[in-house]
Amino acid sequence: MHDLTTPIELRRPALIHYGSGTLEKLADWVAASGYKAPFVVADPVNAARLPALGLGEVGCFGTVVPEPDSDNLAAAVAAAEGADLVIGFGGGSAMDLAKLVAVLVGQPLGLADISGPNRAPARKVGLVQIPTTAGTGSEVGTRALVTDPASNSKIATESPHMLADLAIIDPDLTMTVPPHVTAATGVDAMAHCAEAFTSKRAHPLIDGYALQGIELVGRYLRRAVEDGADTEARAGLSLAAFYGGICLGPVNTTAGHALSYPLGTRYKLPHGIANALIFPHVLAANAAARPEKTALIARALGFEAGSEADIRDGATAFCAALGLDMRLRAHGVAEDDLRAMAEEAHAIRRLLDWNPRDLSVDEIEEIYRRAY
Amino acid sequence: MHDLTTPIELRRPALIHYGSGTLEKLADWVAASGYKAPFVVADPVNAARLPALGLGEVGCFGTVVPEPDSDNLAAAVAAAEGADLVIGFGGGSAMDLAKLVAVLVGQPLGLADISGPNRAPARKVGLVQIPTTAGTGSEVGTRALVTDPASNSKIATESPHMLADLAIIDPDLTMTVPPHVTAATGVDAMAHCAEAFTSKRAHPLIDGYALQGIELVGRYLRRAVEDGADTEARAGLSLAAFYGGICLGPVNTTAGHALSYPLGTRYKLPHGIANALIFPHVLAANAAARPEKTALIARALGFEAGSEADIRDGATAFCAALGLDMRLRAHGVAEDDLRAMAEEAHAIRRLLDWNPRDLSVDEIEEIYRRAY
Repeated sequence: MHDLTTPIELRRPALIHYGSGTLEKLADWVAASGYKAPFVVADPVNAARLPALGLGEVGCFGTVVPEPDSDNLAAAVAAAEGADLVIGFGGGSAMDLAKLVAVLVGQPLGLADISGPNRAPARKVGLVQIPTTAGTGSEVGTRALVTDPASNSKIATESPHMLADLAIIDPDLTMTVPPHVTAATGVDAMAHCAEAFTSKRAHPLIDGYALQGIELVGRYLRRAVEDGADTEARAGLSLAAFYGGICLGPVNTTAGHALSYPLGTRYKLPHGIANALIFPHVLAANAAARPEKTALIARALGFEAGSEADIRDGATAFCAALGLDMRLRAHGVAEDDLRAMAEEAHAIRRLLDWNPRDLSVDEIEEIYRRAY
Repeated sequence: MHDLTTPIELRRPALIHYGSGTLEKLADWVAASGYKAPFVVADPVNAARLPALGLGEVGCFGTVVPEPDSDNLAAAVAAAEGADLVIGFGGGSAMDLAKLVAVLVGQPLGLADISGPNRAPARKVGLVQIPTTAGTGSEVGTRALVTDPASNSKIATESPHMLADLAIIDPDLTMTVPPHVTAATGVDAMAHCAEAFTSKRAHPLIDGYALQGIELVGRYLRRAVEDGADTEARAGLSLAAFYGGICLGPVNTTAGHALSYPLGTRYKLPHGIANALIFPHVLAANAAARPEKTALIARALGFEAGSEADIRDGATAFCAALGLDMRLRAHGVAEDDLRAMAEEAHAIRRLLDWNPRDLSVDEIEEIYRRAY
């Protein structure tokens, strides 16, 4: 068990501007830091609002796709040639690509040369992250995921060089996120916190962020889904996502994320939706191994932890109240695929090895069937 | 009132190694970062254990004094000539001097050119902070205080360039701190948290650190004073000091620190002792302006907040149980000085302007008299 004396490495951008309207800090920072050629990595929605950055004319790769693959990355790196500052502007996909672009631009390297832990070279350019959803927490992290089109698996790259110099967490940017995306990304943020909180690698220094993040989602997610203009709720969710990102660094996720990845790679389900569908089942499956922490999670989300079935029902009800259809079948998943998905998920040892209980392929398939 | 939407600037070293034994991370980091000429800024006690840093032969300014003045700083800067990395190794005095040395070395500038906010130039050298007490939290901050021998006042210098690249918070380094210093520094850490928690500038993002820091001190300070070898208690206090340092950045202290400074500049009272002597009186004086937060502080320290007198007695008893003589008279303070001290404290507007209630010179003098 990790206690207060257990060594832990805490990485986070040295500078974070958090709060309503802080996007206006960007232009001054860019000027004061002496950057001449900022380059934005964005999805099409955010590429359409580049003027909000206040940088005038800037280069932009504006076609980041959901669950981006290595081809999408290669195109972004090529477009960024000549930049001295990379700015990720969007959700997790844009920010993850921005991290990789920042370490690859101007270097004779490709994804295969840097994937895995600690292989990326020192950046030759600056890196700023500006989330426009409240979900992944990618803005404060060192990790990026892209899909390998050949194997359908997620390739994780992690390096201290992929940590941003500056993160601007401005909840105003999330005000236009539609309710179903708000719901999905909010559950994703909460899942980061809940999985880290119950992980075998859980650490008291991270538990504080994790529980605060879960409480913020419990307090504010439904409010933001019901009224997207609720500024306090939006801010609370941006903070929860940031705290979830802190949880990802030294602790990371466990079975919930491992089981949701096949839904993203096979069916292009948005990452947050995939997480929501799996979350109640993993929370319930892990409850016996982490009874006190499961009780705290349940309370923060507004229900009481009882039997495994109670926990599953309570967490499902929490997600369903956000307007999410919680059945895999409703999202185009083929029942015939469940076994193969279970095998795929079971192979993600970098996450499953830290789950508080061991899950066999059969047990994972059983979870998928129950969620079906 | 600041709420979750209020903009806040969060600065912290991008990398922190926290936990027992993490000092061993230093040598690898120095090598990987390519530094060739590390230079240590330390007080005599820590200068005597340089080999613990694992860096072999290193340059060292080993005569940092308590409450260092501008002459002590000038000598350190001169000694650091030629360094490419400055390492603060000690308590707040050593770390504060290291910050100033790091921005001044190799530059044609003196303290007068950089004091105040945001005047220091970009560093030409790296900066690492390694606290050996659990108190100031200086390791994670951007601020340094030195005494002006002419005016007897504290000169504050603050700059993002004074933020360390790396902080190593290894509670093992605090195991040999004697009980009375453990007590004083622990109260200092708690005071940072409590003053930020009740400040007019208090922010929900910082309140979480503040309350956790106070709770850690409430749980662990007496244990560490009674048994210096209690590793869990030492770790809890190192964490409390770190969280106190987080509180200092965007929020900072209020009347407690303002009233304790004259005790340091005039009588060379250790900063922590000075804070402890003042803390119960300011907590009580501010209680009516911050009743809920005062109640949380009291509970975290093991007593219930009632009347102003109850709060003063409860906080005094908490400190006295640590072996601190809580009377100013016992520390060589002259009764005739109290009026001049009150005038001096009242002039520290950078802190007093954020105190939750306005305090006149007469009211400050009354606090000193009560503490006498």
